[in-house]
Amino acid sequence: MTSTKGRAVVLLSGGLDSSTTLAWAKAQGYECYALSFDYQQRHRRELQAAQATARALGAKEHLLIRFDLRGIGGSALTTQEPVPKGQAPREGIPPTYVPARNTIFLAFALAWAEVLGAEDIFIGANAVDYSGYPDCRPQFLEAFQHLANLATREAVQGRMHFRVQAPLLSLSKADIIRKAVELGLDLALTWSCYDPTPEGRPCGACDSCLFRAKGFREAGLQDPLLQK
Amino acid sequence: MTSTKGRAVVLLSGGLDSSTTLAWAKAQGYECYALSFDYQQRHRRELQAAQATARALGAKEHLLIRFDLRGIGGSALTTQEPVPKGQAPREGIPPTYVPARNTIFLAFALAWAEVLGAEDIFIGANAVDYSGYPDCRPQFLEAFQHLANLATREAVQGRMHFRVQAPLLSLSKADIIRKAVELGLDLALTWSCYDPTPEGRPCGACDSCLFRAKGFREAGLQDPLLQK
Repeated sequence: MTSTKGRAVVLLSGGLDSSTTLAWAKAQGYECYALSFDYQQRHRRELQAAQATARALGAKEHLLIRFDLRGIGGSALTTQEPVPKGQAPREGIPPTYVPARNTIFLAFALAWAEVLGAEDIFIGANAVDYSGYPDCRPQFLEAFQHLANLATREAVQGRMHFRVQAPLLSLSKADIIRKAVELGLDLALTWSCYDPTPEGRPCGACDSCLFRAKGFREAGLQDPLLQK
Repeated sequence: MTSTKGRAVVLLSGGLDSSTTLAWAKAQGYECYALSFDYQQRHRRELQAAQATARALGAKEHLLIRFDLRGIGGSALTTQEPVPKGQAPREGIPPTYVPARNTIFLAFALAWAEVLGAEDIFIGANAVDYSGYPDCRPQFLEAFQHLANLATREAVQGRMHFRVQAPLLSLSKADIIRKAVELGLDLALTWSCYDPTPEGRPCGACDSCLFRAKGFREAGLQDPLLQK
């Protein structure tokens, strides 16, 4: 597909939502630059998925930025604190929340977007079937977009205007899965689990596995990752 | 000095402004957590200065976060593009601008602040004797503060309210130097130069050296770094 809408930076964790967002941006005609982060997360397994989906979806480039959030901590994903298991999605913000994670990710995305001349930054944020993380909500994304246009040389000099796009924001997980299938994304390539088993399988019991399972169930589909 | 105002995260590059900001926060009674970044900047020499000033000023902790901005580029500080020399401070935003740098730095500061329970984030931004970087201006800092209070669990649950403090924002470089001296900061420990000589001396001709020299001249003082 030719790129008709210019360049876009797409945050890509390798999960269902970000991979579907990449497929969506590609289908819209953007030339996609995928950006992933190795922050020493417990589930660094997801980075293999990010690499696979970036390749499968024809991202123009895939950049990996490495830093260590264990020195900051404050999350079950970057410390030895256990990942909650087996509970139904619940009220409140769970310990898998990573302080300021999407602010950090979007900040790097903004830097790369400015250098690439990419006015669009895509993020797979979802505020329906999600863990209640504050930095997935629309008011956060709007505030970041406002910041982006004050923070950067190209914006303040009027040569670029950044947009933060979150096309999955109001979709259910089942709708996201349906959309992914419609877009031809191979969901077996994606990875959601926060706490992989020593054998490298999804734990099946963390929030992220539970949301994924609920989505496939409601979409009336089998999860191809579990059939591999 | 006992800490009477709680914890603060202080961005510390090791330059005049951020070191003076750390001294200022300490003098105000904050327990200071200094945060520096090795982003493979040309002038990584500044990190030695950051370590020295953090120690001299009694920072409670000094955290160094490492990542590589050369993969993003777009700046004379992270590429082979030459650093402009010998010009008087001029109009426009020079090539030493690093895309989204303060957005990235503040994002990490916010993460650490949330974990530490530190409501105050200090940054040595200055919008008087500066290179015109957009992310040093008050409207940028206000937008980041707004974002911070939407982005984080502790803020949205009403347990913390983040403030971005830039006490040097409206001071001239001469005033900053006078303030540093008044606060007892040893300015020989600080480092400003963007493009150190192979012998590890300041180049004397980049924007940052020129602003520093202008400040000392206007303050009627000798720069102790040049006398070492």
